[in-house]
Amino acid sequence: MNAPAVAGGPEATLEALVSRAFGPEAFDELGALLPELAEDLAGIEDRIKAVLPSDVPGLTEAVMYACTAGGKRLRPLLMAAAHRALGAGSARPVHALAAAFQLIHTASLIHDDVIDHADLRRGRPSVLRAFGLPAAIVSGDYLYVRAFELAAEYSPSIILRSGEACARLAEGELLQESCRFDLTMSREQYLQVVDRKTATIVSAALACVGDIAGSPAPIVEALAEYGRAVGVAFQLRDDLLDAYGEADLLGKPLYADFREGNPTLLSIEAYRRLSGRPKAEFDRLFARRAKRPRDLLKLRGLTDASGAADAVAAEARRWVASAIHALDPLPGGPYRSLLERLARAASSRRY
Amino acid sequence: MNAPAVAGGPEATLEALVSRAFGPEAFDELGALLPELAEDLAGIEDRIKAVLPSDVPGLTEAVMYACTAGGKRLRPLLMAAAHRALGAGSARPVHALAAAFQLIHTASLIHDDVIDHADLRRGRPSVLRAFGLPAAIVSGDYLYVRAFELAAEYSPSIILRSGEACARLAEGELLQESCRFDLTMSREQYLQVVDRKTATIVSAALACVGDIAGSPAPIVEALAEYGRAVGVAFQLRDDLLDAYGEADLLGKPLYADFREGNPTLLSIEAYRRLSGRPKAEFDRLFARRAKRPRDLLKLRGLTDASGAADAVAAEARRWVASAIHALDPLPGGPYRSLLERLARAASSRRY
Repeated sequence: MNAPAVAGGPEATLEALVSRAFGPEAFDELGALLPELAEDLAGIEDRIKAVLPSDVPGLTEAVMYACTAGGKRLRPLLMAAAHRALGAGSARPVHALAAAFQLIHTASLIHDDVIDHADLRRGRPSVLRAFGLPAAIVSGDYLYVRAFELAAEYSPSIILRSGEACARLAEGELLQESCRFDLTMSREQYLQVVDRKTATIVSAALACVGDIAGSPAPIVEALAEYGRAVGVAFQLRDDLLDAYGEADLLGKPLYADFREGNPTLLSIEAYRRLSGRPKAEFDRLFARRAKRPRDLLKLRGLTDASGAADAVAAEARRWVASAIHALDPLPGGPYRSLLERLARAASSRRY
Repeated sequence: MNAPAVAGGPEATLEALVSRAFGPEAFDELGALLPELAEDLAGIEDRIKAVLPSDVPGLTEAVMYACTAGGKRLRPLLMAAAHRALGAGSARPVHALAAAFQLIHTASLIHDDVIDHADLRRGRPSVLRAFGLPAAIVSGDYLYVRAFELAAEYSPSIILRSGEACARLAEGELLQESCRFDLTMSREQYLQVVDRKTATIVSAALACVGDIAGSPAPIVEALAEYGRAVGVAFQLRDDLLDAYGEADLLGKPLYADFREGNPTLLSIEAYRRLSGRPKAEFDRLFARRAKRPRDLLKLRGLTDASGAADAVAAEARRWVASAIHALDPLPGGPYRSLLERLARAASSRRY
């Protein structure tokens, strides 16, 4: 008699993760790749968990809380899949770096929530609300530091590339702040914010994978381009979900961007398309510092009327196509197909 | 006819720095070392300034503001002097790392001021007050990232040692937060906080210098011990200056530790030494969340009466002696004497 399969092991975790984020059909497509990818994600989680503990108990608690709060593990999944797509029999050489990028991502979210005074993240109180301001600031710093310690395993060029991407990420945060309440920014200006805030770090993560695999420059460049395009598609989908998603799945209330006055392609496009009194009303409501629930619903209604959501979805699909096109120089095979699938999922995911 | 000396060059800057921090007599003692050290500090400043610019203008402005706000440059000075004390003809090999440690220090101060809601730092509004919360959070993150990029020039062991020290620094911040209003902590517990918050990073900086110079383990260990002891002496002096210094020289109001309820060896020792009604009053006033100016003066008066200041000064002198003793394995010479002088200055400085 065989021992029963262990429930809750790496494969079950990956299944739950993928089904929830991308829908059960995405999970079915993973098929034969599942055990290997599950092993990768488990290996990356191990690297993360190994660097988290501190003998200051409150700190361990806060960073464990932040790092085990769910999340799509999109970056680690992309990095492991990319490394395997390059023909490597194991993605172990990128595990530490994938752990580092996941920690950087988590650190940036914690500090983001401090900047936005956000109460909820992934269906639970943010680190700020659960542990307070000092713990939120320190947890972010601690995770950045741990990430760089993980990156120290790699060559200086990898560390520098990761560092530059982190610098762009920080810049993106501030650039976004400086655009608050500005509905007149152009699509190009907004895409510059997205590039820094989201796309550059995904692009760098994938380029580093190419470097680690010893790939020639055109492959590294292809991966960088793929990562950038997936990152943009991912962010545009995020913008859409904030107004058209399900709060339960997202783990946070809808309309955060409207509420905070953060322009996204959705609101920029809505504002551009509206005219006359609806445009003036959109402007007036968006500019309001303390918005009432009915203000948010009215903004959503005006957005509906403008047809902006379709335009944003089309833009996201263009980035997905461009991501898939970027993969041309890579060898074909199941992992390249998976990278294509993940690109499509970035713009179709439900959370 | 010779060209007139350029005012405001590196030597003038170092002279002003040393005279102001340690008194003019310290400057006189530097004598022949001055041109070399001034060159080092200028070289380190160049490395700092080279990594600061961002094309997000508000960010460049905020980090330049933070990095050029004065400060004693104690860490760079110690690192350059230590490298030269090991017989190196130039301290250039440690410039990038010294720049990194200075950036880490600055980043931690910016985030500290966010945690403490501090209005003033070095006689000017804190980054938090001058640029707002988002810029303060992002500037700190950005400086940490830039520091690690500078550290990428070095071997993995240097990066790891620096990273571990940064992790201790973050832990120290939170440990300190968890001790707020707790006057019953022991001297040993307080020294553990100091070790993390201040001493470990100085210790790591100096151990790295030994590593970079290719020194044998006992020398690296000696430098680590020296750095740790200087760091503790430095912090104890900081604690004293907060109650007994000159606000103008410090660039911030006195009694911040009393006000915030941050126990230091001064208040712990005062509380321990007092008894009866004065002890109860000290306890009651220290615990007050919103203290009036007269509460602060009363706390200072009770501290005077307790004799705690002399005890703290004596403790600082013991750490200075231990720092100087730690230098025994190093070769003698003017730079080792300078390291001794800097250790003494750590516990006698006026700001």
